Amino acid sequence: MIKMCSRLVATSLRLHAAPSSLLLCQQSRLVSTRRVPSEETLAALKTLLGNRLSTASSVLEQHGTDESYHAVAPPDAVAFVQSTMEVSEVVKICAAAHTPVIPFGAGSSLEGHISATEGGVSIDLTGMNEILSVEPENMSCKVQAGVTREQLNVDLRATGLMFPVDPGANATLGGMISTNASGTTTVRYGNMKNNVMSLTAVMADGRVIKTGSKTRKSSAGYDLTRMLIGSEGTLGIVTEAELRLFGVPEAEKTMICQFDSIQNAVDTCATVMQMGIPVARMELMDENAVDAINKYSKLDTPVRPSLIIEHHGSPGEVEEQSSVVVEIANDFEAKDIELATGLEERKKLWSGRHAAWYATLNQMPGSRGLCTDVAVPFAKLTNVIVETQADLMKSGLFGAIVGHVGDGNFHVMLPFLQDDAKLMQKVRDFSDRLVNRALECEGTCTGEHGIGNGKMSYLSKEHRDGVEVMHMIKKALDPKDIMNPGKIFYGDKKH
Amino acid sequence: MIKMCSRLVATSLRLHAAPSSLLLCQQSRLVSTRRVPSEETLAALKTLLGNRLSTASSVLEQHGTDESYHAVAPPDAVAFVQSTMEVSEVVKICAAAHTPVIPFGAGSSLEGHISATEGGVSIDLTGMNEILSVEPENMSCKVQAGVTREQLNVDLRATGLMFPVDPGANATLGGMISTNASGTTTVRYGNMKNNVMSLTAVMADGRVIKTGSKTRKSSAGYDLTRMLIGSEGTLGIVTEAELRLFGVPEAEKTMICQFDSIQNAVDTCATVMQMGIPVARMELMDENAVDAINKYSKLDTPVRPSLIIEHHGSPGEVEEQSSVVVEIANDFEAKDIELATGLEERKKLWSGRHAAWYATLNQMPGSRGLCTDVAVPFAKLTNVIVETQADLMKSGLFGAIVGHVGDGNFHVMLPFLQDDAKLMQKVRDFSDRLVNRALECEGTCTGEHGIGNGKMSYLSKEHRDGVEVMHMIKKALDPKDIMNPGKIFYGDKKH
Repeated sequence: MIKMCSRLVATSLRLHAAPSSLLLCQQSRLVSTRRVPSEETLAALKTLLGNRLSTASSVLEQHGTDESYHAVAPPDAVAFVQSTMEVSEVVKICAAAHTPVIPFGAGSSLEGHISATEGGVSIDLTGMNEILSVEPENMSCKVQAGVTREQLNVDLRATGLMFPVDPGANATLGGMISTNASGTTTVRYGNMKNNVMSLTAVMADGRVIKTGSKTRKSSAGYDLTRMLIGSEGTLGIVTEAELRLFGVPEAEKTMICQFDSIQNAVDTCATVMQMGIPVARMELMDENAVDAINKYSKLDTPVRPSLIIEHHGSPGEVEEQSSVVVEIANDFEAKDIELATGLEERKKLWSGRHAAWYATLNQMPGSRGLCTDVAVPFAKLTNVIVETQADLMKSGLFGAIVGHVGDGNFHVMLPFLQDDAKLMQKVRDFSDRLVNRALECEGTCTGEHGIGNGKMSYLSKEHRDGVEVMHMIKKALDPKDIMNPGKIFYGDKKH
Repeated sequence: MIKMCSRLVATSLRLHAAPSSLLLCQQSRLVSTRRVPSEETLAALKTLLGNRLSTASSVLEQHGTDESYHAVAPPDAVAFVQSTMEVSEVVKICAAAHTPVIPFGAGSSLEGHISATEGGVSIDLTGMNEILSVEPENMSCKVQAGVTREQLNVDLRATGLMFPVDPGANATLGGMISTNASGTTTVRYGNMKNNVMSLTAVMADGRVIKTGSKTRKSSAGYDLTRMLIGSEGTLGIVTEAELRLFGVPEAEKTMICQFDSIQNAVDTCATVMQMGIPVARMELMDENAVDAINKYSKLDTPVRPSLIIEHHGSPGEVEEQSSVVVEIANDFEAKDIELATGLEERKKLWSGRHAAWYATLNQMPGSRGLCTDVAVPFAKLTNVIVETQADLMKSGLFGAIVGHVGDGNFHVMLPFLQDDAKLMQKVRDFSDRLVNRALECEGTCTGEHGIGNGKMSYLSKEHRDGVEVMHMIKKALDPKDIMNPGKIFYGDKKH
């Protein structure tokens, strides 16, 4: 039905800095076609944006690079947009020529979401960084997609409110919406799906829609808000969002508990959850993670499997909750429990945990890393983590485990040198085994990072017939396949 | 593209018991075509189901009737199914003949969701009422769609767990999923979107998909779980669901606070929310609601605007929380605050509140009722409720206001006699004004009841371009328009 009039098959793919075996594998599955924008398309974009359209090679390179191990795949041009209407115009120009558009925020994604695997135009939303309104009495705010979570929380300080979702990286809120980000605080405050009330998005034909409403709940028709959250720019480009805010807790109390075995650490966490003790964060770190963080962040935490647990509430509530957790941890033979109540002390602890990714890469200078992201049913968490640690040891790989264990979600961070194809293969094999372990117990291949172009085969395995239904939606809303193509689904759409 | 081979236009519509002016209006907009199942279709269904296929007029009548004021629209046959595979077979048989299928649970919906406005086969899921598994250590359970929420909670008693979503009616969980139900506990535990992890659903071509996973969160592709929740059977028929469970709270404390003005009652609620005091339920009742409940449930609550507020937690937590709320209520000049801690006392209070709908209808013997369902941004709640009460008085209508005010959601319950066309029109005009008031402040026309065939024009008004996107999804997933047609979208799909 749709005439793919301007598709160009490029013989020389601009993919950099990845071992050739990996590249070959990616080329054959993912990058079958390139759709380079025509001179006319670039001229129309230039007329619209002036010098906010860039084709400088360093800019292209940067916009084809995220934090992942995936090959750099630069776009053919970058559009630095400043408004929803500009995004709409860019999409209309590109749609007319079947040119792909790839939204770009902080570039902190971990599965190649921003790669221009078929070429096209990267739409950089970082210039749309205005906090449009804050309504303390409604406990909500409206932001442009390029606002980062740290920028928002700094801005909110005077109001006594905060936006709670915290994926670690200082991502843009648009990016966090695209991957359905979550993180350390999700056990208490939920993920992006729980904290976005309404979106403004530009669809594949350039039309602008507003989803949801400025209310806590609605049953008005299909939930386009939650359909767009986690759709990784493949259905629409989110330009604005209405977010839920929470009061900064009156009191916060953080503790770090060390254990002799990772089993006791995870069992402590499972018991806390099953007893329904409210926790605001509950993070696991294995010995390797603690060691890497110590070295990178100049801390001296004893090198043992550890849990960092935080409570938010009134002074009375956090005291009561933390004393129950201390009892539970002691039941599981906690070796050491240290409380951090002062702001600076707590900040130091969390900045260490937040730097875990860089700390782990730092253990192997010059490395990039693969970061697994499975989540499993709560009841299976201890077994899966213990088996995974055993697998790690058996395979002789260096990896560090950190996890949002209150959500059943944990990461194994595996650094490798990109010219070491053998190590890379070992890392991928380990990751395969871990995903299979998670899927066997009805878990998911990704708790919060998304599919991107790194987990497409896992998505097929996880959702089977469901992926076909997802693809029917994709085809209906983006018949020209211009919205971030080559993500979530294979280019040839075979699953 | 799609050949509508077996559509039959029926000249004699089987619509009962509604005033003729209303019927005419509904006929012209909603019921343009009937698609009666052919003899072959009925024979194939009979072969599949034996005497579990019924065409008895009383059965048809019952399956075309819900709790709403909408005209009864019976199906042409009712299929009493017992398994997902049977639902799939029924849908395949009906799809081959372009015959509509309408899922049916407890029949407690309030917007005509189960009406067979184009004829077709009602799929009665109440025989699929098995609780398939309960996993206390995973705090989850798996149920068939016909299990009711009360049945589930009775079954869970021994585990110390509960399913928290409570819409008042003893609805089936499948029905609650279809309308994205919520209710009195949503302020604390969320609505169906927050408490369903995974679904099994039969799609329009009979394929069976499993969405989501048995985990707290996932970023694996488009969120088909939340797309199906609230889609009112128009995209697929939910047959099984994996649900989140919560521990029965260690302590519960309920209070009822009376005020001289509804403004003070709502302001109390707004302050509690803005201060972030955890509440498990926070329900408003105006004087008319209190009076109706008193008469119906034989209670003697003073007839004043009232809030029922409940706390769940440890004994220390509920004490601390309720004492703060008492202080706030006193700041807003609460006239009387009564605490109910005993189970029987609390049960009596809540059974009164849950009977509010029938209590209000009871005020006008022989009546049916229209129940509005707007939700508004928190900051606008007091103004909207005060304006709505004034409008009610000015229009001379009898109506009772109850509301899940912690979510910004409230209902005006308006009884009328079905042969009083003039009163009916006044009720509809009042409802129109209320919806407009909500939409003007970025609220929603429905917080929890759904669109059905009663709010389609409001959906268009609320979501404009978004409705077109919803309809693109509908067309892609149900090209023959057999899945509960005439709900959410107009039959002619013009918006």
